[in-house]
Amino acid sequence: MGGSAAAAGKSVSGGGRAAPRVPVPEARPFLDTFRANLKETFFPDDPFRAVVRERGFGRRAAAALRYFFPFLEWAPAYRLGTFKSDLIAGITIASLAIPQGISYAKLANLPPILGLYSSFVPPLVYAMMGSSKDLAVGTVAVASLLIGSMLGAEVSPTDNPALYLHLAFTATFFAGVIQASLGILRLGFIVDFLSHAAIVGFMGGAATVVCLQQLKGMLGLEHFTTSTDLVSVMRSVFSQTHQWRWESVVLGCGFLFFLLLTRFFSKRQPRLFWISAAAPLTSVILGSLLVYFTHAENHGVQIIGNLKKGLNPISVTNLQFTPPYMMLALKTGLITGVIALAEGIAVGRSFAMFKNYHIDGNKEMIAIGTMNILGSFTSCYLTTGPFSRSAVNYNAGCKTAMSNVIMSLAVMVTLLFLTPLFHYTPLVVLSAIIMSAMLGLIDFPAAVHLWHVDKVDFCVCAGAYLGVVFGSVEMGLVVAVAISVLRVLLFVARPRTTVLGNVPDTNVYRRMDQYTTARTVPGVLVLRVDSPIYFANSGYLRERITRWIDDDDERTSAKGETGVQYVVLDMGAVGSIDTSGTSMLDELKKTLDRRGIQIVLANPGSEIMKKLDSSKVLELIGHEWIFPTVGEAVAECDFVLHSHKPGMVSGSATRENMV
Amino acid sequence: MGGSAAAAGKSVSGGGRAAPRVPVPEARPFLDTFRANLKETFFPDDPFRAVVRERGFGRRAAAALRYFFPFLEWAPAYRLGTFKSDLIAGITIASLAIPQGISYAKLANLPPILGLYSSFVPPLVYAMMGSSKDLAVGTVAVASLLIGSMLGAEVSPTDNPALYLHLAFTATFFAGVIQASLGILRLGFIVDFLSHAAIVGFMGGAATVVCLQQLKGMLGLEHFTTSTDLVSVMRSVFSQTHQWRWESVVLGCGFLFFLLLTRFFSKRQPRLFWISAAAPLTSVILGSLLVYFTHAENHGVQIIGNLKKGLNPISVTNLQFTPPYMMLALKTGLITGVIALAEGIAVGRSFAMFKNYHIDGNKEMIAIGTMNILGSFTSCYLTTGPFSRSAVNYNAGCKTAMSNVIMSLAVMVTLLFLTPLFHYTPLVVLSAIIMSAMLGLIDFPAAVHLWHVDKVDFCVCAGAYLGVVFGSVEMGLVVAVAISVLRVLLFVARPRTTVLGNVPDTNVYRRMDQYTTARTVPGVLVLRVDSPIYFANSGYLRERITRWIDDDDERTSAKGETGVQYVVLDMGAVGSIDTSGTSMLDELKKTLDRRGIQIVLANPGSEIMKKLDSSKVLELIGHEWIFPTVGEAVAECDFVLHSHKPGMVSGSATRENMV
Repeated sequence: MGGSAAAAGKSVSGGGRAAPRVPVPEARPFLDTFRANLKETFFPDDPFRAVVRERGFGRRAAAALRYFFPFLEWAPAYRLGTFKSDLIAGITIASLAIPQGISYAKLANLPPILGLYSSFVPPLVYAMMGSSKDLAVGTVAVASLLIGSMLGAEVSPTDNPALYLHLAFTATFFAGVIQASLGILRLGFIVDFLSHAAIVGFMGGAATVVCLQQLKGMLGLEHFTTSTDLVSVMRSVFSQTHQWRWESVVLGCGFLFFLLLTRFFSKRQPRLFWISAAAPLTSVILGSLLVYFTHAENHGVQIIGNLKKGLNPISVTNLQFTPPYMMLALKTGLITGVIALAEGIAVGRSFAMFKNYHIDGNKEMIAIGTMNILGSFTSCYLTTGPFSRSAVNYNAGCKTAMSNVIMSLAVMVTLLFLTPLFHYTPLVVLSAIIMSAMLGLIDFPAAVHLWHVDKVDFCVCAGAYLGVVFGSVEMGLVVAVAISVLRVLLFVARPRTTVLGNVPDTNVYRRMDQYTTARTVPGVLVLRVDSPIYFANSGYLRERITRWIDDDDERTSAKGETGVQYVVLDMGAVGSIDTSGTSMLDELKKTLDRRGIQIVLANPGSEIMKKLDSSKVLELIGHEWIFPTVGEAVAECDFVLHSHKPGMVSGSATRENMV
Repeated sequence: MGGSAAAAGKSVSGGGRAAPRVPVPEARPFLDTFRANLKETFFPDDPFRAVVRERGFGRRAAAALRYFFPFLEWAPAYRLGTFKSDLIAGITIASLAIPQGISYAKLANLPPILGLYSSFVPPLVYAMMGSSKDLAVGTVAVASLLIGSMLGAEVSPTDNPALYLHLAFTATFFAGVIQASLGILRLGFIVDFLSHAAIVGFMGGAATVVCLQQLKGMLGLEHFTTSTDLVSVMRSVFSQTHQWRWESVVLGCGFLFFLLLTRFFSKRQPRLFWISAAAPLTSVILGSLLVYFTHAENHGVQIIGNLKKGLNPISVTNLQFTPPYMMLALKTGLITGVIALAEGIAVGRSFAMFKNYHIDGNKEMIAIGTMNILGSFTSCYLTTGPFSRSAVNYNAGCKTAMSNVIMSLAVMVTLLFLTPLFHYTPLVVLSAIIMSAMLGLIDFPAAVHLWHVDKVDFCVCAGAYLGVVFGSVEMGLVVAVAISVLRVLLFVARPRTTVLGNVPDTNVYRRMDQYTTARTVPGVLVLRVDSPIYFANSGYLRERITRWIDDDDERTSAKGETGVQYVVLDMGAVGSIDTSGTSMLDELKKTLDRRGIQIVLANPGSEIMKKLDSSKVLELIGHEWIFPTVGEAVAECDFVLHSHKPGMVSGSATRENMV
């Protein structure tokens, strides 16, 4: 047995009663505390550790460069074997990126070619600045839909296509600026306030809404509602049943079935990932050939039409920084930027976890933000790291961000030479591609899991889902964030207090609702507070503690036992306290004094002791009534109760044995 | 020595290794948990205890009536001796209420007579429904100023006095409805989110702003800015120095000096409370006589003028429920109602604490709300329980809410017969009365106390103060609430984690930063998490825990010691966990597994165990790696480390001795 374990079995040596048992820590200079708190708040992961560790300016500058441009880290050691893996992965994701890019651009009511532009520049930027090895950069369905619905609410993409396009670039620019600023200002934790449950519900709802929007393409409808909610879409669909085109429906359902089937196979056999990865491009090729040979475009099957050849035109001069549209772009950028960021970070983190490397959230934000800013200068719209594409990238065996470069080059070749091939691609195939991707985002098992583990989380999830499906995407987001924040506030406002009881024949105190063997000590009520004490809960805690005492008095007086004489508050779980909290203890002490009850504190942390001392509450309660453990506190109470001598008594062998 | 204390010194009997040491509690039906949580959230004080305890419908109905109309509790036992005390207190507060009422009505740009109306009906309602014995009902300066500035921003009180007056009634009605609803819906805890620090800063700022506004009256200015911020007021004052009236300045400063002097005396000698209580009425009488005999009204001293004789006219038909002004009234009612409520509840609670009786916050809200609704029907504007008047009431020895009834009757007599006496009252005296009351609200020592105890609370306070003084009252409120809520969110997002160390020769583990004798155990890192684990902090905790491990590895490898093999998480302070929290543990377990580190949990509560079980994390970690105490957990780790046998080992005498 090792040292500490061998020592166990003995107990605290006590050390007399002369010195207070729980020391008040020495005051630290304000600036020291302030700096430490600032660091803990904004730099909890100590990101510059690698830079600070180096000696000399040159080495530090090199380390800083490596920090901001992670490709400098892996590029020098890049080998042919790694390149082979990245080449395969890059080509695979390119075959997915091209049809998805075109589809999602349609979802945002933008020209299809923008989807290709957006898969060219941003991946190159990310490859240099991003720290994830698995993230495949591209546009995403939910953000595309949101851009479409938010911008479309004020500017019509059909009546004023140029303005609409420029606003999309401006929104992307703002999204990038906001993303990068969040990273630079170390505010990445704001994204954490979108809880997992909220994201599951929100994504599921958004996927449902996106699928519903595809009914337009699937049914070959010319006119469609601009709303995204279930009721409007259903009314729009069933009010024009005579417009449904069977050619479109058959083609769409056929391809959807094909895509779902390949997905099913790939899921069963992860080795066959390439089947589902190649399926969209295959569908596009098959669909285009079919239309080309059958001239189905003349029979109600809508096609993409002309796509301009050539690389991204410069769009930096198109950004709109003048009212009245700037605010619209800013709002759109803010909301879509945060959502896209949340997805990108979450995806990056998941894959980093699988491969056991570290991702710096704030640095990722800077990378994603920069890629969107540069994207907005070169005719790209909002990009991030979509889950589906990154999963394909991961399964295809990518090793570094080089796979993004390969994808980018493949898209470049497509832009330069292959765009005419997409002329005959039927829109219904794009709808099928979107639907099959979206159905994978509705995570029903996750919702069931939430229901089993935590009902409140399930409510957050359901609220977000219903908000998106029956309201709008923005409303779903607001509902999700509001329920999440309300939950935090409720958590904080209604902390748990539990009665502790003594485990017979020991000096251990445990929660009475959990450990059935625990017994109360006559005359002593031991309460445990499970949260920091501050303004949001101090009123509640005062009332709740008083109620525990009333309950106990009622119970004991019914049995004719001794009433409560001592209330021992186990402060072990109280992480911090503010001035409202110290006033609460002050008030509680005075109220209990009038009832002839002594308040005793057990196990307060150093910060608590400091605050109690500076607010004079320590003096009021008396330093001798503060103990390092509940056992010692109760022993002292019990001793005084039975010796009928109030106040302090010098240490006895029995009490010195307490833990 | 009593039973449990005598038992101390022995230690936990352990009980073999067959059964898991920390039991998973049995699943309770969902509805039971839900009902219990609902009760804990909305009825933490168990308000209907007195009603439920009674048997039979009649007795229960009587108890319920007594609950909603507390005067039924004390009225039957009302005695002449009590009445004498209440009579003195009532007359004292009436002598304060009349001049203050007139002054505050001027502050709200309302006819002065409204101040008297508002001291007649609401106190009667409160006497029946309120549970505080000390609260003296009346209008308050801050809410009056807010009504004036919020309504005045859209409707001019001079150009359109009738509409302005009706909007003030409507705002009062909405304020009452909101206050009563908060009480009925048991949402009283929302008021708790205005922290004490925020209120100190906000009140101080508002008092400063109110004082600044009095410069108009003190200097005898005709024109004055409608803004309330320091810069506008100073510009307004110093741009018209030629308009200053020395008569007004002399009179004002004289009375202000007199009022402050009486306050100073009363503060030194609480027995002489009546000196400061009677001073405002004395000033009004002296000022009026002075003007009457010197005809100062012709020399630049403005006077109140005619006050209509007679009781409150009915105003229920004046309420405005049509756009566009309804929204303005609603907004004003919401903000002023919540502020007034916060003041009333806080005042009621403070005095209840002094006299050791209980106040039900939610019931008080219903009483204050009802009094404002009925007030708005009878030409009263917003009332609550002002601190200064309640303090006078308390010092004058009031015994029950009857003192409010006496005050109300005194005001009634004034309204019926004495209003002509106020014709010659100079406005400058009212300004002096307001200023002297307001200077008492600037709680400089409280701000100093905040600085000493908690720097963040001081920032909240300073932010609120500066927001009010340099921005506007609403802005100060927004700043105060925003900083307070941000603080809660930061508290939640950045919980404290500390390393625990072994106290030599014991099996006790304590925070190493607090107890300098504590020592680390080689190969085992004991971490304590001081907050619930949920979405807002799960990402941070994962990073922070990883960083603790990295730090420890660095430290030990520098010394050539064993690296971390076990991470013991002390979950004792983790009050609850949500699905993001369980996923975090899941991820952490997998990450640590890859580094060859075993994760061990110590002392998880019953709710945590339930969640860990239902989310399968318990299975993943292994039930055998969960221990009731840190001591047992470390002993097990240490045992395995030194016997080099991984996995479970059956219990030994030494380990059974662990606590």
